[in-house]
Parts: sequence; C-alpha cells; structure tokens
Amino acid sequence: MMRVSRQVKVGEILLGGGQPVWVQSMTKTPTHEVEATLAQIRRLAAAGCEIVRVAVPDREAGLLLGRIKEGSPLPVVADIHYDYRLALLALEQGVDKLRLNPGNIGPRWKVEEVARAAKDRGVPIRIGVNAGSLEKNLREERGRLASAMVESALRQAEVLESVGFADIVLSLKASDAPATVEACRRAAEMCPYPLHLGVTEAGTAWAGAIRSAVGLGALLLEGIGDTIRVSLNADPEREVQAAWHILAAVGLRRRGVELIACPTCGRCQVDLMPVAERVEAALAQVERPLKVAVMGCVVNGPGEAREADVGLAGGKGQAVLFRNGRVVRKVPESDMVEELLREVRALLGQEAPGNDEGGNADAGR
Amino acid sequence: MMRVSRQVKVGEILLGGGQPVWVQSMTKTPTHEVEATLAQIRRLAAAGCEIVRVAVPDREAGLLLGRIKEGSPLPVVADIHYDYRLALLALEQGVDKLRLNPGNIGPRWKVEEVARAAKDRGVPIRIGVNAGSLEKNLREERGRLASAMVESALRQAEVLESVGFADIVLSLKASDAPATVEACRRAAEMCPYPLHLGVTEAGTAWAGAIRSAVGLGALLLEGIGDTIRVSLNADPEREVQAAWHILAAVGLRRRGVELIACPTCGRCQVDLMPVAERVEAALAQVERPLKVAVMGCVVNGPGEAREADVGLAGGKGQAVLFRNGRVVRKVPESDMVEELLREVRALLGQEAPGNDEGGNADAGR
Repeated sequence: MMRVSRQVKVGEILLGGGQPVWVQSMTKTPTHEVEATLAQIRRLAAAGCEIVRVAVPDREAGLLLGRIKEGSPLPVVADIHYDYRLALLALEQGVDKLRLNPGNIGPRWKVEEVARAAKDRGVPIRIGVNAGSLEKNLREERGRLASAMVESALRQAEVLESVGFADIVLSLKASDAPATVEACRRAAEMCPYPLHLGVTEAGTAWAGAIRSAVGLGALLLEGIGDTIRVSLNADPEREVQAAWHILAAVGLRRRGVELIACPTCGRCQVDLMPVAERVEAALAQVERPLKVAVMGCVVNGPGEAREADVGLAGGKGQAVLFRNGRVVRKVPESDMVEELLREVRALLGQEAPGNDEGGNADAGR
Repeated sequence: MMRVSRQVKVGEILLGGGQPVWVQSMTKTPTHEVEATLAQIRRLAAAGCEIVRVAVPDREAGLLLGRIKEGSPLPVVADIHYDYRLALLALEQGVDKLRLNPGNIGPRWKVEEVARAAKDRGVPIRIGVNAGSLEKNLREERGRLASAMVESALRQAEVLESVGFADIVLSLKASDAPATVEACRRAAEMCPYPLHLGVTEAGTAWAGAIRSAVGLGALLLEGIGDTIRVSLNADPEREVQAAWHILAAVGLRRRGVELIACPTCGRCQVDLMPVAERVEAALAQVERPLKVAVMGCVVNGPGEAREADVGLAGGKGQAVLFRNGRVVRKVPESDMVEELLREVRALLGQEAPGNDEGGNADAGR
C-alpha cells in the first residue's frame, strides 16, 4: 500500500523510492551565526535529525552556507524565498538541496535559471507550498485550499520539468491538518515525486505536536510521505523527537524508548505518574528502539508489560518485572524504578549493577 | 462520509447517531475518596470533559457511586472489571453507563444478568476491549491483534443482544495505534454501535498525546468515532485538553484558543517562542473557539495572520495586528503581546483597556 515515489539524492541520503521516511528539522539560530547554527545542527543530529534546513534570508547568509555545509554532519537544505539569486548562491556554496517557495519566487525565467543550475550540480529542489504564502492569483481564483496548493506545486513542477529537471520533491503544508492531508493525497496521486510532509505553523510544543500527529499520522498510515518535518514553536530538538514519536506511532520506524504507560485510575495502587516521567527521562538518550511498559494494576498491566521488551506491572507494595515476555522477578515498590532501569541497561548490554543512575533511584514510594 | 451509528443515551447526553463526538476522561483519585473524586470531576468539567468514568475496584467503591453520581455535573460511567456483581451494584447506585471488559467478566450468564438489569434501567453498556486484557482463548487462537479485538467485542455484543439488549457502545483499544485504527475500522463496518475511541496506555503527556493523535485522528478523519478518551499518564485535565486539540485538528469541534504559531527559523526577526507560550497561557481559560496566529516574519506571517480571528505578524521591531482578516494597526514589538491580548478580549466582548493581564504584558523581548 506504500506509495513508491521517484528517488532523489540529498547529499548521501536517498529520498523516496521505498527508502525510510527521513526525519528533518530546521535551524532556528540566525544563519549568519555559523558556530551557533552548526552547534544546533549537531544537537539536532544527536536527537535523530537526518536532514537539516537553514534559512537564507539574505546574501550575507548565503555566503556562509559553504562553511555550514562543511561543518554539518547532516545534508544541508537551503530555504529560499523571494530572491532566486539566493538559490543560485546556495548552489555555488555546495548545499545538498534547495527549497523554493513557488508563492514568492516570481517569474518563470528565474525558476528556470535556478533549475538549470541545480541540474548541473545534481542537486534536488523541493517545491515547498505553504497555504500562508500561496501565489496571489491562486488564492483568489480557487475556493478550496487543498486544490490551490496542489495546483501551485504542480505548476511549479512543470516549470522545472520544462528545462529537463526531474529531481523534484514536493511539500504542501497548511496549518489546517485536513487541508494538508487532502492536498498531499491528491499530489500523491497526480505526480511521481517524493513528498515532504508537514503541518505548518502547527503551534506550541504540545498542541503543535498533536496537530502534526493528526495530519502526518493519517498520511503515513496511508503509505504517503518520504520525509517529515514537524514544525513547532519550540526548540528544534522537540521537532525531531515529535517526528520520531509519530513514526513510531504509525509503526514505520523506531528510535529510542517507546514508553507504554497506563493512565492510572481509581484502581491504581501505585503512584505511577512520577515513575513514568522518571523512566522516560532516565532513558531519553537511548537510541536503540525499545518498548518499555510501566503499568499500575492487574487489569491490563501484565498483558501490556509482557508485550514490551522490558515491563513493570505494579501492585500492592510490589511490582512484577518482565523482560522479553517473561517474568524476571518481583521487586518491592520502593525499588521498582531502579530495577526497571537495571533491566533495560542489561538488555542494552551495559553493565547492570551499581552504576550511577540505578544507584540513586528511590522512586515509586 | 461520517458513519452514523445507532444512538444511545448516557444521562442527558445523546451518544452516536450523528451527535457531536463527545470528550471523555476518567478520574484518577481513589474512588473511595468521594470528595476528591468529585473535585476532580468538577475540574474535568471545567476543562471541557463531557462524560466521566470512575473505576469501581470493589464493593466499598461501588456503594459510593450514588453519592458521586449525585454530586457530579457530568454523566457518570462505572468502570467494571472481574466482578459482575459490581456492575449490578453500580446500576442500583444510578450510574449513567457501564463499561464492561469482556476479557475478564467471566461466564455468559453473568454478562446476561448485567444486561437484563441495565435494560430495566435504560442504561447503556460499553463493551471495552483492551489488547492488554483480551480473553485468553482469543489471544491464543488469533495471530492478529485487531481481528482478536473485534471478535472479542462482537462476541460480547452477541451475548447482550441475546437478552434483547441493544444500547451498546464498543471500544477497541491497543497501545499500538495502527492496530487500534484497524480494529475500529472493522468494527465500524461490522456493527451499528457507536464507537468510543482511544489508544490505551499511550504514555506520558507529550508522547502519549502524539500517539493518541495519530490513532484517533486517522479514525475521526474517516468519520469514525462517537466519543473519545485520550489516555495519558498525566493529570486528567491534560487528557481533556489533548482530546479537544485532536477534535480541533481534524476540524470536527473547537473549544478555546487554537494557536497558529510559526516554528521560527533563521529569518525570524522576533523572539517568538516566549510570545507564543505567553499568549497560549494567557488565553488558556477561554472556552469560545478562537483562532489566534502568532507569526515571526513576512513569508507566511501576513497570510496566516489574516486567516485567524486575531493575528500578529512580527517584523523589524514592530508587529502588524490583524483582526478578522483586516489590519488593525501596527504596534511596537515591546507591546505586541499586550496588544494582541487586548484585541482578543475586545473580540470576546470583554473590556479592553487597562485590565490586569494586558497592563502587565511586557513581552516581545
């Protein structure tokens, strides 16, 4: 059921054509500040970001792209608005991909010139349509947002195709999730290009992650999407974490700990909320995919804990530890976080007993 | 495209049959503590919860349901596991709905007895299947989780139907979002009953909200679902807030402020993150649906701000305020939060100038 798109190459990364759905983000530092931008890119890479985009607001920023590219552990995408000369400059600076906004680049010949230069260098171009900056005539002539977005993207793709350029990626983003879903579905049917998914201006870390999960989740469950970027008004690492949570939730890719935690209710015999938060925090740096269950009672506890790689089902003053579906041992409630973390570390092949975090654990009481 | 289910009545609330998708949550206080439970129910109601469920772990808790029902501003659902006598007791105590877990209630005659008593009182029953507590034989005989969940639910529905009971609601919850989506889709096709949606044991406030948004969002976008509960290992008000964010994201229902906020990037000329957080916090108590945009630059700023009820597009040291699609005025960056909140209050028909929050605003720096 997965849509197989035409493949493009972004630096060393193959995008589309059955490859994994890659996680992207965008730097929020002023691009002129090269060191700060590179530091943020390194943090993003550590959090699981696989492609990074930087804004190119002006020529001064454009001239620094080579240094950013050189220092970046990730393929670098230059985000271009308004001025096609910034796109040409970004190509000269060796970026791995361009993002153009068809709503504000202007006349056809400018886009053609960028496409020719990109073709010469083998650099793909993402046509990035945003509802908030649709070409004026499209906003006016079309009632429905999704159609207008698709038309804007395909029109621009035609301009690129007309000069023999085919390394195209499309994105169609609105802050409205159903409009985004509808636009991407249509684009997925109407063209072979890989799709970059995002719900734009989604909001703050929590509300924005929810809105993104609704839009991106629905598309990914349908097999649509080749790379995703979660736009949050928050630290960019949060965008990357949210993207991974979405990919895990749809069952496509996993990275780090997926915590199954019961919501607790009036039958819960363990004070589980601090436990879940502590376990999540203690395992935040784990990269290997791992399912950890923290459950508070006998109703679903043992069942879910058994499905997890490591699980804990709390009871009256004690908890049962599971590993790979088998009961490991019973532990007193006062030690259950420590014991759970010990089990996880053992599973990860790290030394189990007597290390720092474990030794200090005192929760669950 | 919306699935129209058979309607049931939960207290004063009509559930299913084209009614709105109602927001549910569950108390996390010990049910024995009536006052604490009622206080939590009142907080849930203030947050937008419309149906509340309470656990009934034992007879002592069951005997207090009448008092909880009497003091609750919301219809009360009794959550029953293991002991069918607790279901009978809950009915005597006047609850508005029962939730039974077919995985652990036991032999058929017990379920029939509950159904007869519920029928006499006109009280609906939710058959609440959880992947973590599927009937043992179903777990064993079925490879695929979704099929097993649907079979468990429909088997139990048959038992209820066999004594002439039809006021049935179904839920099919797994911690795995795609399994939940698949199970609910099948159930929606195979029976007429209203569906209560939830991804169970979803996790902590952030990761769990993302996972729930993926599962519930996909179903709601397909027109499936009559009521939702987001299960989070967090304060239950967060579950209600997440539920409303999901309903808003799919375009079904809106409550309170929906904040469109740009993620910021290297071209952002305003320090927007504290602004978005402050605006969201200041407007957290607003119940009337309102779209507020907080944007950091000229690319999508004016476009998105214009689509919002009230919007702000920041620039160099100043911001443009929009209301209902029209520029209201330019304001200095130092006053933009105050001015935005003033505009919102004016729109809400509250007194604008000189009130507390507005007077203290000093953000944008």
